[in-house]
Amino acid sequence: MAELTLYIANKNYSSWSFRPWIAFTARGVPFREVLVPFDFPNGNPRIKEISPSGKVPLLRHGDLSVWESLAIVEYAAELFPEAGLWPEDPAARAVARSVSAEMVAGFGALRNACPMNMRRRKGAIPLQEGVAADVARIEEIWHERLARSGGPFLFGDFSAADAMFAPVVNRFEIYDLVRHETTLAYMAAMKAHPAWKTWEEAALAEPWIVPEDEA
Amino acid sequence: MAELTLYIANKNYSSWSFRPWIAFTARGVPFREVLVPFDFPNGNPRIKEISPSGKVPLLRHGDLSVWESLAIVEYAAELFPEAGLWPEDPAARAVARSVSAEMVAGFGALRNACPMNMRRRKGAIPLQEGVAADVARIEEIWHERLARSGGPFLFGDFSAADAMFAPVVNRFEIYDLVRHETTLAYMAAMKAHPAWKTWEEAALAEPWIVPEDEA
Repeated sequence: MAELTLYIANKNYSSWSFRPWIAFTARGVPFREVLVPFDFPNGNPRIKEISPSGKVPLLRHGDLSVWESLAIVEYAAELFPEAGLWPEDPAARAVARSVSAEMVAGFGALRNACPMNMRRRKGAIPLQEGVAADVARIEEIWHERLARSGGPFLFGDFSAADAMFAPVVNRFEIYDLVRHETTLAYMAAMKAHPAWKTWEEAALAEPWIVPEDEA
Repeated sequence: MAELTLYIANKNYSSWSFRPWIAFTARGVPFREVLVPFDFPNGNPRIKEISPSGKVPLLRHGDLSVWESLAIVEYAAELFPEAGLWPEDPAARAVARSVSAEMVAGFGALRNACPMNMRRRKGAIPLQEGVAADVARIEEIWHERLARSGGPFLFGDFSAADAMFAPVVNRFEIYDLVRHETTLAYMAAMKAHPAWKTWEEAALAEPWIVPEDEA
Protein backbone atom coordinates (compact mmCIF):
# COMPACT_ATOMS: atom_id res chain seq x y z
CA MET A 1 0.00 0.00 0.00
CA ALA A 2 1.19 3.52 -0.79
CA GLU A 3 2.37 5.54 2.16
CA LEU A 4 0.04 8.03 3.85
CA THR A 5 1.50 11.54 3.87
CA LEU A 6 0.02 14.13 6.20
CA TYR A 7 0.71 17.76 5.26
CA ILE A 8 0.56 19.99 8.30
CA ALA A 9 1.42 23.55 9.30
CA ASN A 10 3.62 24.46 12.25
CA LYS A 11 3.10 22.59 15.50
CA ASN A 12 2.91 25.59 17.79
CA TYR A 13 -0.16 27.22 16.29
CA SER A 14 -1.86 24.88 13.84
CA SER A 15 -4.76 23.45 15.79
CA TRP A 16 -6.32 21.78 12.75
CA SER A 17 -3.05 20.04 11.89
CA PHE A 18 -2.81 18.77 15.46
CA ARG A 19 -6.12 16.89 15.27
CA PRO A 20 -5.42 14.20 12.63
CA TRP A 21 -1.75 14.11 13.68
CA ILE A 22 -2.53 13.16 17.28
CA ALA A 23 -5.31 10.78 16.19
CA PHE A 24 -2.93 8.91 13.88
CA THR A 25 -0.04 8.98 16.35
CA ALA A 26 -2.09 7.89 19.35
CA ARG A 27 -3.82 5.07 17.45
CA GLY A 28 -0.79 3.83 15.53
CA VAL A 29 -1.83 4.79 12.01
CA PRO A 30 1.42 4.80 10.01
CA PHE A 31 2.12 8.08 8.20
CA ARG A 32 4.83 10.43 7.07
CA GLU A 33 4.47 14.12 7.92
CA VAL A 34 5.40 17.07 5.74
CA LEU A 35 5.48 20.54 7.21
CA VAL A 36 4.06 23.26 4.94
CA PRO A 37 5.42 26.69 5.83
CA PHE A 38 2.85 29.49 6.03
CA ASP A 39 5.12 32.28 7.27
CA PHE A 40 4.84 34.35 4.11
CA PRO A 41 3.09 37.74 3.89
CA ASN A 42 0.01 36.14 2.28
CA GLY A 43 0.42 32.52 3.29
CA ASN A 44 2.19 29.91 1.20
CA PRO A 45 1.97 31.00 -2.47
CA ARG A 46 2.10 27.38 -3.65
CA ILE A 47 -0.51 26.04 -1.24
CA LYS A 48 -3.09 25.37 -3.99
CA GLU A 49 -0.60 22.96 -5.61
CA ILE A 50 -0.68 20.96 -2.40
CA SER A 51 -4.24 21.40 -1.18
CA PRO A 52 -7.47 21.91 -3.16
CA SER A 53 -9.03 23.91 -0.33
CA GLY A 54 -5.90 26.01 0.14
CA LYS A 55 -5.63 24.69 3.69
CA VAL A 56 -3.90 22.04 5.72
CA PRO A 57 -4.15 19.41 7.11
CA LEU A 58 -4.21 17.43 3.93
CA LEU A 59 -3.68 13.70 3.52
CA ARG A 60 -2.10 12.30 0.37
CA HIS A 61 -2.39 8.61 -0.46
CA GLY A 62 -1.00 7.87 -3.90
CA ASP A 63 -2.90 10.18 -6.23
CA LEU A 64 -5.68 10.84 -3.74
CA SER A 65 -5.96 14.04 -1.70
CA VAL A 66 -8.20 14.03 1.36
CA TRP A 67 -8.71 17.26 3.29
CA GLU A 68 -10.55 18.45 6.40
CA SER A 69 -9.58 16.73 9.65
CA LEU A 70 -12.82 14.75 9.99
CA ALA A 71 -12.60 13.40 6.44
CA ILE A 72 -8.93 12.51 6.99
CA VAL A 73 -9.84 10.57 10.11
CA GLU A 74 -12.71 8.77 8.36
CA TYR A 75 -10.44 7.75 5.48
CA ALA A 76 -7.79 6.36 7.83
CA ALA A 77 -10.48 4.61 9.89
CA GLU A 78 -11.61 2.78 6.74
CA LEU A 79 -8.03 1.90 5.72
CA PHE A 80 -6.96 0.78 9.19
CA PRO A 81 -10.05 -0.53 11.00
CA GLU A 82 -7.79 -2.30 13.52
CA ALA A 83 -6.37 1.05 14.66
CA GLY A 84 -9.65 1.84 16.45
CA LEU A 85 -9.76 5.52 15.58
CA TRP A 86 -13.46 5.53 16.46
CA PRO A 87 -15.06 3.63 19.37
CA GLU A 88 -16.02 0.06 18.47
CA ASP A 89 -19.60 0.27 19.78
CA PRO A 90 -21.89 1.74 17.07
CA ALA A 91 -23.79 3.99 19.49
CA ALA A 92 -20.60 5.30 21.08
CA ARG A 93 -19.13 5.80 17.61
CA ALA A 94 -22.18 7.83 16.58
CA VAL A 95 -21.82 10.11 19.60
CA ALA A 96 -18.06 10.37 19.03
CA ARG A 97 -18.83 11.62 15.54
CA SER A 98 -21.48 14.01 16.89
CA VAL A 99 -19.12 15.70 19.36
CA SER A 100 -16.34 15.73 16.74
CA ALA A 101 -18.58 17.42 14.18
CA GLU A 102 -19.79 19.86 16.84
CA MET A 103 -16.15 20.83 17.38
CA VAL A 104 -15.55 21.23 13.65
CA ALA A 105 -18.70 23.27 13.09
CA GLY A 106 -18.76 25.40 16.18
CA PHE A 107 -17.13 27.08 19.14
CA GLY A 108 -16.12 30.00 16.97
CA ALA A 109 -15.90 32.43 19.87
CA LEU A 110 -13.38 30.27 21.72
CA ARG A 111 -11.42 29.50 18.56
CA ASN A 112 -11.18 33.14 17.51
CA ALA A 113 -10.42 34.65 20.90
CA CYS A 114 -8.15 31.95 22.28
CA PRO A 115 -5.83 30.52 19.63
CA MET A 116 -3.81 27.40 20.35
CA ASN A 117 -0.24 28.23 21.26
CA MET A 118 1.86 25.42 22.68
CA ARG A 119 4.58 27.81 23.86
CA ARG A 120 2.42 30.41 25.60
CA ARG A 121 2.81 30.89 29.34
CA LYS A 122 -0.40 30.37 31.29
CA GLY A 123 -2.30 33.57 31.88
CA ALA A 124 -5.89 34.77 31.66
CA ILE A 125 -7.02 37.25 29.01
CA PRO A 126 -10.20 39.37 28.93
CA LEU A 127 -12.99 37.02 27.81
CA GLN A 128 -14.75 38.04 24.62
CA GLU A 129 -18.47 37.48 24.20
CA GLY A 130 -19.45 33.89 23.64
CA VAL A 131 -16.27 32.31 24.99
CA ALA A 132 -17.82 31.38 28.34
CA ALA A 133 -20.76 29.68 26.62
CA ASP A 134 -18.38 27.72 24.38
CA VAL A 135 -16.32 26.63 27.37
CA ALA A 136 -19.47 25.58 29.25
CA ARG A 137 -20.76 23.48 26.37
CA ILE A 138 -17.40 21.77 25.86
CA GLU A 139 -17.20 20.97 29.58
CA GLU A 140 -20.75 19.62 29.40
CA ILE A 141 -19.72 17.28 26.56
CA TRP A 142 -16.59 16.13 28.36
CA HIS A 143 -18.28 15.56 31.72
CA GLU A 144 -21.14 13.61 30.22
CA ARG A 145 -18.85 11.38 28.18
CA LEU A 146 -16.35 10.82 31.00
CA ALA A 147 -19.19 9.90 33.40
CA ARG A 148 -20.37 7.29 30.90
CA SER A 149 -17.00 5.92 29.85
CA GLY A 150 -15.23 6.16 33.20
CA GLY A 151 -12.35 7.91 31.39
CA PRO A 152 -9.53 8.56 31.13
CA PHE A 153 -10.65 9.64 27.64
CA LEU A 154 -14.06 10.59 26.33
CA PHE A 155 -14.95 7.09 25.18
CA GLY A 156 -12.53 5.20 27.44
CA ASP A 157 -9.45 4.74 25.28
CA PHE A 158 -8.10 7.66 23.26
CA SER A 159 -10.21 8.07 20.11
CA ALA A 160 -10.58 10.51 17.25
CA ALA A 161 -13.07 12.44 19.40
CA ASP A 162 -10.30 13.21 21.88
CA ALA A 163 -8.10 14.25 18.98
CA MET A 164 -10.71 16.80 17.90
CA PHE A 165 -10.61 18.37 21.36
CA ALA A 166 -6.83 18.19 21.84
CA PRO A 167 -6.21 21.83 20.84
CA VAL A 168 -8.99 22.87 23.24
CA VAL A 169 -7.01 21.31 26.10
CA ASN A 170 -4.17 23.71 25.28
CA ARG A 171 -6.56 26.67 25.07
CA PHE A 172 -8.24 25.87 28.38
CA GLU A 173 -4.80 25.55 29.97
CA ILE A 174 -2.96 28.59 28.65
CA TYR A 175 -5.84 31.06 29.01
CA ASP A 176 -6.77 29.63 32.42
CA LEU A 177 -10.38 29.02 31.42
CA VAL A 178 -11.50 26.13 33.61
CA ARG A 179 -11.63 25.06 37.24
CA HIS A 180 -13.78 21.91 37.39
CA GLU A 181 -11.81 18.90 38.62
CA THR A 182 -13.30 16.55 36.00
CA THR A 183 -12.20 18.95 33.30
CA LEU A 184 -8.72 19.24 34.79
CA ALA A 185 -8.39 15.45 35.11
CA TYR A 186 -9.25 15.01 31.44
CA MET A 187 -6.73 17.69 30.48
CA ALA A 188 -4.09 15.98 32.59
CA ALA A 189 -4.78 12.65 30.88
CA MET A 190 -4.48 14.31 27.48
CA LYS A 191 -1.24 16.08 28.34
CA ALA A 192 0.27 12.88 29.73
CA HIS A 193 -0.39 10.98 26.49
CA PRO A 194 2.85 10.15 24.65
CA ALA A 195 1.40 11.50 21.39
CA TRP A 196 0.66 14.86 23.02
CA LYS A 197 4.17 15.00 24.48
CA THR A 198 5.78 14.26 21.13
CA TRP A 199 3.83 17.07 19.43
CA GLU A 200 4.51 19.50 22.29
CA GLU A 201 8.26 18.84 22.22
CA ALA A 202 8.35 19.44 18.48
CA ALA A 203 6.34 22.66 18.89
CA LEU A 204 8.74 23.95 21.53
CA ALA A 205 11.70 23.10 19.30
CA GLU A 206 10.36 25.04 16.30
CA PRO A 207 12.30 28.15 15.32
CA TRP A 208 10.27 31.18 16.35
CA ILE A 209 10.19 34.88 16.86
CA VAL A 210 8.73 36.03 20.18
CA PRO A 211 5.43 37.84 19.54
CA GLU A 212 4.41 40.40 22.15
CA ASP A 213 1.78 38.07 23.58
CA GLU A 214 4.37 35.40 24.38
CA ALA A 215 7.18 37.59 25.69
CA MET B 1 -35.20 -2.21 14.34
CA ALA B 2 -36.39 0.91 16.15
CA GLU B 3 -37.59 3.74 13.95
CA LEU B 4 -35.26 6.61 13.07
CA THR B 5 -36.72 9.97 14.09
CA LEU B 6 -35.23 13.13 12.65
CA TYR B 7 -35.92 16.31 14.62
CA ILE B 8 -35.78 19.35 12.39
CA ALA B 9 -36.64 23.04 12.50
CA ASN B 10 -38.84 24.79 9.96
CA LYS B 11 -38.33 23.98 6.31
CA ASN B 12 -38.14 27.53 5.00
CA TYR B 13 -35.08 28.65 6.92
CA SER B 14 -33.38 25.68 8.56
CA SER B 15 -30.49 24.89 6.28
CA TRP B 16 -28.92 22.39 8.68
CA SER B 17 -32.18 20.48 8.99
CA PHE B 18 -32.42 20.34 5.20
CA ARG B 19 -29.12 18.48 4.82
CA PRO B 20 -29.82 15.13 6.54
CA TRP B 21 -33.47 15.34 5.52
CA ILE B 22 -32.70 15.52 1.79
CA ALA B 23 -29.92 12.93 2.13
CA PHE B 24 -32.30 10.44 3.76
CA THR B 25 -35.18 11.25 1.44
CA ALA B 26 -33.14 11.11 -1.76
CA ARG B 27 -31.39 7.84 -0.78
CA GLY B 28 -34.43 6.10 0.66
CA VAL B 29 -33.39 5.95 4.31
CA PRO B 30 -36.65 5.36 6.23
CA PHE B 31 -37.35 7.94 8.92
CA ARG B 32 -40.06 9.86 10.71
CA GLU B 33 -39.70 13.63 10.99
CA VAL B 34 -40.62 15.80 13.95
CA LEU B 35 -40.70 19.55 13.58
CA VAL B 36 -39.28 21.48 16.55
CA PRO B 37 -40.64 25.02 16.71
CA PHE B 38 -38.07 27.74 17.36
CA ASP B 39 -40.33 30.79 16.99
CA PHE B 40 -40.05 31.84 20.62
CA PRO B 41 -38.29 34.98 21.81
CA ASN B 42 -35.20 33.00 22.86
CA GLY B 43 -35.63 29.83 20.85
CA ASN B 44 -37.38 26.71 22.08
CA PRO B 45 -37.17 26.67 25.91
CA ARG B 46 -37.31 22.86 25.96
CA ILE B 47 -34.69 22.28 23.27
CA LYS B 48 -32.12 20.83 25.70
CA GLU B 49 -34.61 18.06 26.54
CA ILE B 50 -34.53 17.10 22.88
CA SER B 51 -30.98 17.88 21.84
CA PRO B 52 -27.75 17.77 23.90
CA SER B 53 -26.20 20.52 21.78
CA GLY B 54 -29.31 22.67 21.95
CA LYS B 55 -29.60 22.47 18.18
CA VAL B 56 -31.32 20.52 15.47
CA PRO B 57 -31.08 18.45 13.36
CA LEU B 58 -31.02 15.60 15.80
CA LEU B 59 -31.55 11.92 15.07
CA ARG B 60 -33.13 9.63 17.66
CA HIS B 61 -32.83 5.88 17.36
CA GLY B 62 -34.22 4.12 20.42
CA ASP B 63 -32.32 5.66 23.33
CA LEU B 64 -29.53 7.02 21.15
CA SER B 65 -29.26 10.69 20.17
CA VAL B 66 -27.02 11.60 17.24
CA TRP B 67 -26.54 15.25 16.36
CA GLU B 68 -24.69 17.32 13.74
CA SER B 69 -25.65 16.64 10.14
CA LEU B 70 -22.41 14.87 9.23
CA ALA B 71 -22.63 12.51 12.21
CA ILE B 72 -26.29 11.82 11.42
CA VAL B 73 -25.38 10.90 7.86
CA GLU B 74 -22.51 8.66 8.99
CA TYR B 75 -24.79 6.84 11.43
CA ALA B 76 -27.43 6.20 8.79
CA ALA B 77 -24.74 5.16 6.29
CA GLU B 78 -23.61 2.47 8.75
CA LEU B 79 -27.18 1.32 9.46
CA PHE B 80 -28.25 1.30 5.81
CA PRO B 81 -25.17 0.59 3.69
CA GLU B 82 -27.42 -0.34 0.76
CA ALA B 83 -28.84 3.19 0.67
CA GLY B 84 -25.58 4.48 -0.80
CA LEU B 85 -25.47 7.74 1.13
CA TRP B 86 -21.77 7.99 0.29
CA PRO B 87 -20.16 7.06 -3.05
CA GLU B 88 -19.19 3.39 -3.26
CA ASP B 89 -15.62 3.98 -4.45
CA PRO B 90 -13.32 4.56 -1.42
CA ALA B 91 -11.42 7.44 -3.06
CA ALA B 92 -14.64 9.16 -4.18
CA ARG B 93 -16.09 8.60 -0.72
CA ALA B 94 -13.04 10.25 0.87
CA VAL B 95 -13.42 13.32 -1.34
CA ALA B 96 -17.17 13.39 -0.71
CA ARG B 97 -16.41 13.54 3.00
CA SER B 98 -13.76 16.24 2.40
CA VAL B 99 -16.11 18.58 0.57
CA SER B 100 -18.90 17.82 3.08
CA ALA B 101 -16.66 18.68 6.02
CA GLU B 102 -15.44 21.79 4.21
CA MET B 103 -19.09 22.88 3.97
CA VAL B 104 -19.69 22.15 7.67
CA ALA B 105 -16.53 23.94 8.81
CA GLY B 106 -16.49 26.89 6.48
CA PHE B 107 -18.12 29.37 4.14
CA GLY B 108 -19.13 31.51 7.09
CA ALA B 109 -19.35 34.71 5.06
CA LEU B 110 -21.88 33.19 2.66
CA ARG B 111 -23.83 31.52 5.45
CA ASN B 112 -24.08 34.69 7.52
CA ALA B 113 -24.83 37.13 4.74
CA CYS B 114 -27.11 34.96 2.62
CA PRO B 115 -29.43 32.80 4.72
CA MET B 116 -31.44 30.05 3.10
CA ASN B 117 -35.01 31.09 2.47
CA MET B 118 -37.11 28.83 0.28
CA ARG B 119 -39.83 31.44 -0.15
CA ARG B 120 -37.68 34.45 -1.03
CA ARG B 121 -38.06 36.02 -4.45
CA LYS B 122 -34.86 36.13 -6.47
CA GLY B 123 -32.94 39.35 -6.08
CA ALA B 124 -29.36 40.44 -5.51
CA ILE B 125 -28.23 42.01 -2.25
CA PRO B 126 -25.05 44.02 -1.55
CA LEU B 127 -22.27 41.45 -1.17
CA GLN B 128 -20.50 41.47 2.18
CA GLU B 129 -16.78 40.83 2.42
CA GLY B 130 -15.81 37.23 1.90
CA VAL B 131 -18.98 36.12 0.13
CA ALA B 132 -17.45 36.22 -3.34
CA ALA B 133 -14.50 34.10 -2.20
CA ASP B 134 -16.86 31.55 -0.65
CA VAL B 135 -18.94 31.40 -3.83
CA ALA B 136 -15.79 30.97 -5.94
CA ARG B 137 -14.49 28.11 -3.80
CA ILE B 138 -17.85 26.32 -3.83
CA GLU B 139 -18.05 26.66 -7.61
CA GLU B 140 -14.49 25.33 -7.86
CA ILE B 141 -15.52 22.24 -5.84
CA TRP B 142 -18.66 21.68 -7.90
CA HIS B 143 -16.99 22.14 -11.27
CA GLU B 144 -14.10 19.83 -10.44
CA ARG B 145 -16.39 17.09 -9.15
CA LEU B 146 -18.89 17.40 -12.02
CA ALA B 147 -16.06 17.24 -14.56
CA ARG B 148 -14.87 14.00 -12.98
CA SER B 149 -18.24 12.38 -12.39
CA GLY B 150 -20.01 13.61 -15.51
CA GLY B 151 -22.89 14.73 -13.25
CA PRO B 152 -25.71 15.27 -12.80
CA PHE B 153 -24.59 15.27 -9.14
CA LEU B 154 -21.16 15.80 -7.60
CA PHE B 155 -20.28 12.11 -7.56
CA GLY B 156 -22.69 10.98 -10.27
CA ASP B 157 -25.78 9.88 -8.37
CA PHE B 158 -27.14 12.05 -5.56
CA SER B 159 -25.03 11.51 -2.43
CA ALA B 160 -24.64 12.99 1.04
CA ALA B 161 -22.16 15.47 -0.44
CA ASP B 162 -24.94 16.96 -2.59
CA ALA B 163 -27.13 17.08 0.50
CA MET B 164 -24.52 19.18 2.29
CA PHE B 165 -24.63 21.73 -0.55
CA ALA B 166 -28.41 21.69 -1.06
CA PRO B 167 -29.03 24.87 0.98
CA VAL B 168 -26.26 26.58 -1.02
CA VAL B 169 -28.24 25.94 -4.19
CA ASN B 170 -31.08 27.98 -2.70
CA ARG B 171 -28.69 30.75 -1.62
CA PHE B 172 -27.02 30.98 -5.02
CA GLU B 173 -30.45 31.14 -6.62
CA ILE B 174 -32.29 33.64 -4.46
CA TYR B 175 -29.42 36.11 -4.07
CA ASP B 176 -28.49 35.77 -7.75
CA LEU B 177 -24.88 34.89 -6.98
CA VAL B 178 -23.76 32.78 -9.94
CA ARG B 179 -23.63 32.85 -13.72
CA HIS B 180 -21.47 29.90 -14.80
CA GLU B 181 -23.44 27.39 -16.86
CA THR B 182 -21.95 24.37 -15.08
CA THR B 183 -23.05 25.84 -11.77
CA LEU B 184 -26.53 26.56 -13.12
CA ALA B 185 -26.85 23.05 -14.55
CA TYR B 186 -26.00 21.53 -11.18
CA MET B 187 -28.50 23.79 -9.46
CA ALA B 188 -31.16 22.79 -11.99
CA ALA B 189 -30.46 19.10 -11.34
CA MET B 190 -30.77 19.66 -7.60
CA LYS B 191 -34.00 21.62 -7.90
CA ALA B 192 -35.50 18.97 -10.19
CA HIS B 193 -34.83 16.19 -7.67
CA PRO B 194 -38.07 14.85 -6.15
CA ALA B 195 -36.62 15.16 -2.64
CA TRP B 196 -35.90 18.86 -3.20
CA LYS B 197 -39.40 19.43 -4.54
CA THR B 198 -41.01 17.72 -1.56
CA TRP B 199 -39.06 19.89 0.90
CA GLU B 200 -39.74 23.06 -1.10
CA GLU B 201 -43.49 22.40 -1.24
CA ALA B 202 -43.58 21.86 2.51
CA ALA B 203 -41.58 25.07 3.09
CA LEU B 204 -43.98 27.08 0.95
CA ALA B 205 -46.94 25.61 2.82
CA GLU B 206 -45.61 26.57 6.27
CA PRO B 207 -47.54 29.26 8.11
CA TRP B 208 -45.52 32.48 8.05
CA ILE B 209 -45.45 36.18 8.63
CA VAL B 210 -44.01 38.20 5.78
CA PRO B 211 -40.70 39.77 6.88
CA GLU B 212 -39.71 42.97 5.13
CA ASP B 213 -37.08 41.20 3.07
CA GLU B 214 -39.64 38.82 1.57
CA ALA B 215 -42.44 41.26 0.89
